Amino acid sequence: MKIEQKGKSNVKITDSFWKKRLEIIREHVIPYQWEALNDRIPDTAPSHAIENFRLAAGEAEGEFFGMVFQDSDVAKWIEAVAFSLENEPNEELEQIVDEVVALLGRAQDENGYLNTYYQVKEPKNRWTNVRDNHELYCAGHLIEAAVAYYHATGKRQFLDIMCQYADHIASVFGPEENKLKGYPGHQEIELALVKLFDVTANENYLNLSKYFIDERGKQPHYFDLEKKERNEKKPFWFNDDYAYHQAHKPVREQKEAVGHAVRAVYMYTAMADLASKTNDESLKKACETLWENVTQKQMYITAGIGSMVFGEAFSFDYDLPNDLSYTETCASIGLVFWAKRMLNLEVNRKYSDVLETALYNGTISGMDLDGKKFFYVNPLEVQPEASEKRNDKKHIKPVRQKWFGCACCPPNIARLVASIGHYIYTQNQNELFVHLYMGHETQIEIAGNQVGIVQKTNYPWDGKISINISPESEQQFTIALRIPGWSKGAVVKVNGEIVDHEPLMKNGYVYINRNWSENDQIELALQMVIERIQANPLVRNNNGKVALQRGPIVYCLEEVDNGKSLPSIFLPRNAELTAKFEEDLLEGIVVISGQAERMEDAGWENKLYRPVEEHTRKVEIKAVPYYAWCNRQPGEMIVWVNEKR
Amino acid sequence: MKIEQKGKSNVKITDSFWKKRLEIIREHVIPYQWEALNDRIPDTAPSHAIENFRLAAGEAEGEFFGMVFQDSDVAKWIEAVAFSLENEPNEELEQIVDEVVALLGRAQDENGYLNTYYQVKEPKNRWTNVRDNHELYCAGHLIEAAVAYYHATGKRQFLDIMCQYADHIASVFGPEENKLKGYPGHQEIELALVKLFDVTANENYLNLSKYFIDERGKQPHYFDLEKKERNEKKPFWFNDDYAYHQAHKPVREQKEAVGHAVRAVYMYTAMADLASKTNDESLKKACETLWENVTQKQMYITAGIGSMVFGEAFSFDYDLPNDLSYTETCASIGLVFWAKRMLNLEVNRKYSDVLETALYNGTISGMDLDGKKFFYVNPLEVQPEASEKRNDKKHIKPVRQKWFGCACCPPNIARLVASIGHYIYTQNQNELFVHLYMGHETQIEIAGNQVGIVQKTNYPWDGKISINISPESEQQFTIALRIPGWSKGAVVKVNGEIVDHEPLMKNGYVYINRNWSENDQIELALQMVIERIQANPLVRNNNGKVALQRGPIVYCLEEVDNGKSLPSIFLPRNAELTAKFEEDLLEGIVVISGQAERMEDAGWENKLYRPVEEHTRKVEIKAVPYYAWCNRQPGEMIVWVNEKR
Repeated sequence: MKIEQKGKSNVKITDSFWKKRLEIIREHVIPYQWEALNDRIPDTAPSHAIENFRLAAGEAEGEFFGMVFQDSDVAKWIEAVAFSLENEPNEELEQIVDEVVALLGRAQDENGYLNTYYQVKEPKNRWTNVRDNHELYCAGHLIEAAVAYYHATGKRQFLDIMCQYADHIASVFGPEENKLKGYPGHQEIELALVKLFDVTANENYLNLSKYFIDERGKQPHYFDLEKKERNEKKPFWFNDDYAYHQAHKPVREQKEAVGHAVRAVYMYTAMADLASKTNDESLKKACETLWENVTQKQMYITAGIGSMVFGEAFSFDYDLPNDLSYTETCASIGLVFWAKRMLNLEVNRKYSDVLETALYNGTISGMDLDGKKFFYVNPLEVQPEASEKRNDKKHIKPVRQKWFGCACCPPNIARLVASIGHYIYTQNQNELFVHLYMGHETQIEIAGNQVGIVQKTNYPWDGKISINISPESEQQFTIALRIPGWSKGAVVKVNGEIVDHEPLMKNGYVYINRNWSENDQIELALQMVIERIQANPLVRNNNGKVALQRGPIVYCLEEVDNGKSLPSIFLPRNAELTAKFEEDLLEGIVVISGQAERMEDAGWENKLYRPVEEHTRKVEIKAVPYYAWCNRQPGEMIVWVNEKR
Repeated sequence: MKIEQKGKSNVKITDSFWKKRLEIIREHVIPYQWEALNDRIPDTAPSHAIENFRLAAGEAEGEFFGMVFQDSDVAKWIEAVAFSLENEPNEELEQIVDEVVALLGRAQDENGYLNTYYQVKEPKNRWTNVRDNHELYCAGHLIEAAVAYYHATGKRQFLDIMCQYADHIASVFGPEENKLKGYPGHQEIELALVKLFDVTANENYLNLSKYFIDERGKQPHYFDLEKKERNEKKPFWFNDDYAYHQAHKPVREQKEAVGHAVRAVYMYTAMADLASKTNDESLKKACETLWENVTQKQMYITAGIGSMVFGEAFSFDYDLPNDLSYTETCASIGLVFWAKRMLNLEVNRKYSDVLETALYNGTISGMDLDGKKFFYVNPLEVQPEASEKRNDKKHIKPVRQKWFGCACCPPNIARLVASIGHYIYTQNQNELFVHLYMGHETQIEIAGNQVGIVQKTNYPWDGKISINISPESEQQFTIALRIPGWSKGAVVKVNGEIVDHEPLMKNGYVYINRNWSENDQIELALQMVIERIQANPLVRNNNGKVALQRGPIVYCLEEVDNGKSLPSIFLPRNAELTAKFEEDLLEGIVVISGQAERMEDAGWENKLYRPVEEHTRKVEIKAVPYYAWCNRQPGEMIVWVNEKR
């Protein structure tokens, strides 16, 4: 079964949850980031990213400034704009991008090379440190942006620029004797080259991606050869181990996710892409093994990944400390990318459940509700005083920041949210797989037939979804609906008639094959109850604790609702919990509340320890969605709540 | 009430618990450390400490090697030898020390200066960086050693050397116009100068100590002036704050313990000394306030202090993470010093309880039962894989080390244990205060009468203590017995007759005033039960957990007894726990055992999260004294155990 990826989404989001986020991206985040890229935001770390391209084009004078991967911020911004234009055309914005693209064209070297750091600062040292210096990474983001912009506008200029650059890269790296045997220290170009192949059908791009993946981790190690060339002696800083770059061994031998989490999931994404494009079974198996490791042993309940600040990295199985996590916004975004590709390999809710968890929790927690501030790190437990006073918790910011010196996350979340419509469906010739539920309208070609689809739902607050199916003409095909893993039960109706769906279930999807005709109506009712979730006992920090979840939404307790010292709250196993939609709170959320106990702190009279006494008082607790935390007064936050049983 | 400190202890330890430790110190630790100081131990970090003195004396050629405070290792070793000689004369050892002292004499400059780092490496830069470079710290340790050696042997040579050095220091630092207005970055000399005053009665030493304490933290800040002189620009590394050295404000204004924990408690020790020697009420008040802060808000249940690796420092009130603690052996040792001085200011069990807790837990945990390996850091929760793979837990060693590059702790624990007899009593003219219970014999002068005392007990495993009191002639005086805070009840008998002790209690001590005559017998029976201890609810890591304690001993669970994944064990509140002495285990300990529940890890089938289910299995747990952990197979360890209630 070959699943096709659609390049352009013509999904029109009407969803109450996502529509306002798309508007924020369009109306606030994209313009704000444009100002940031042009250094017009006071009191924030300067970006210099556009100016760097002017320098490279010889249209300005000065020094390169910023991270070695500063170009990628421009790329991610253009990509976000492109996805946003798909949703809502905007001539003014398009014109700005056209001007940036023209600048990129002028900055590009005649041979196709385009990287402002090297062009401006170290023109002689190109491709001498692909381990650390992000040339291939930046190229990857620019390629992704060019592809997205082409899909959104049909304009080829940017795509042509990037094809030229990709051709240049293919002339530098590859198996031929005169070429470098290298691959990027920060994976990204691999997945981008697959996209470039998809849009151009030029197999060179697919082959180059495959080369980067297959070459990785081979001995003698390219990073060592390259390092020797640079005459660099010191051991690599990450335990002297290329596990940081997932280059410690060939990718097919990798069984556990290690190292920098973003690099890891970007690589796994490309691996899954290549496995499906090239029918590579060993690569597919490697992806599945790594997926199991990440999602069954190294993932927070919010779909945050990366449990240590050192190396922004995975640590080891079941090591998921809530107050020391890294859980970078970009890593959860990468997990979304990867999950989507795994769905192309196999339609299975083990992938779409994680995709959904990431979308509703660990990714969007990275942005405040106004789109004005961002988290790099998305911890599951915050005590502001510890973030301030403990060096080992300095990375756990208790409030979102306006912008970062290393500004990868804000444009990444912008491009993810702007492209949300791309994650609802995958399909093949005769089957349409519905992975996500959100209000939208779209036209999809199934079995050669244009099918109009309208989804209506109040998801994620309510489990009722109605889907209107209107093919041009009556036709038989399959619609496969995901029944989320969290759902305690589902009722499926077609045109008002209950479908006995259990026999139609496969890997968590209900396969409805029938003759569809105009205005056929699917109704799906997912039972959305408040769940107390427990963690595998091997997760040592969560023993005796529960997290509250309802539908795809993971909840947390905040100080603003529950007072200080949140870990002294104990939720009895049998305490009744109620869910209620509060329209005016945090832009409209379902709140969970109930009665819990709090360790009585009166009576301690300056004692630190004493023989146990049972002094608790009843307290009302109020839990809010994790993604919405820290949108009111800052303070403590916990996801995992002590339980009394 | 003036309490006198005895210089020399003539306590002969016969105690089953401490006697073997003294033997280990004498027979293994002291000889081993002598070999280490002379670089004769293979496979360990070289010390070079003795060689440095040879270099300074011009009797060897080469470079200074080691920490800037390397001299202090020699000092602490001599001090340990001195205390050991008090317990058991040893001519051979005494001769070695005499030779070292002679070497020190030859290394000493004519003007009295004696610091091998500066003499060998930077002779022109003496006293230019008292903030960082430990000249005054090393002088302090040498003074302490000289005083101890004088008490133990009556030999004056070392004392004379150090008086000459102290006189030199007094000529360099002080309020007079031509003197430096400085004070040490690492406090230590302040308490040493008080000891030097005690033995010499030279008030200059007391005044110099007082000067260092009173000058500290004044503005303009000496460390800034000194830094400017050095033309040093960069901000101080500890948050650009002299709180690291407790020099952020004058000592009397300090209300909370901050910064490097060892520096802090060494300073508080000197402050308490000075408060009692000079009747300084404001200094006494400052000590009391700091004592309350440390023991009521910043102390682990083991009497470990310093809850973060950054700066080896205090963090903030109630921040006591078990798996990120620093809890340096030396810091708990310093807490013992300080507690002893607080007892001189006021006989109150709030001081002696902490002193006892530190002695039986957080100090001796720093050494293995053989005296061959040492912990620098004494954590309350250890997972070896986390220590290996997480950078933020690298300081938490899962096994003791043979020696350290910075070898402060091993000789410090040696001198503490060797001087254990000094901590049993304090006294004034007519009152003898019994703070600790351990088998020993001694002669003490009370009210002008030589009183023979013999304590017999199987403490800390048993709460029965018998004390034989034999004055030369019948005389009225007071014996005040500490009733530990952990005791649930006590029976006091004199010559077989129960004493109604409640009316005689003051601040936790039973004051027995009577005519004592030969072979009077005190019997004290302390009720020693297994306690489940809970922490103040503001200690966020310990909510829902208990620590087991019996008498002064804090217990822990080790993997070797209880399997892996210790946090998945839950101890029911009502589970019966039994205490049993096991003679052959860990050199004879009382073991606590009982039935607990373990979260069932079967049935998880590679899931990381699921809605709560109640699957536990009954398990026998076995707890051993914390101090004795990691003397069998290495593995996980926890002090705080999850509770089910």
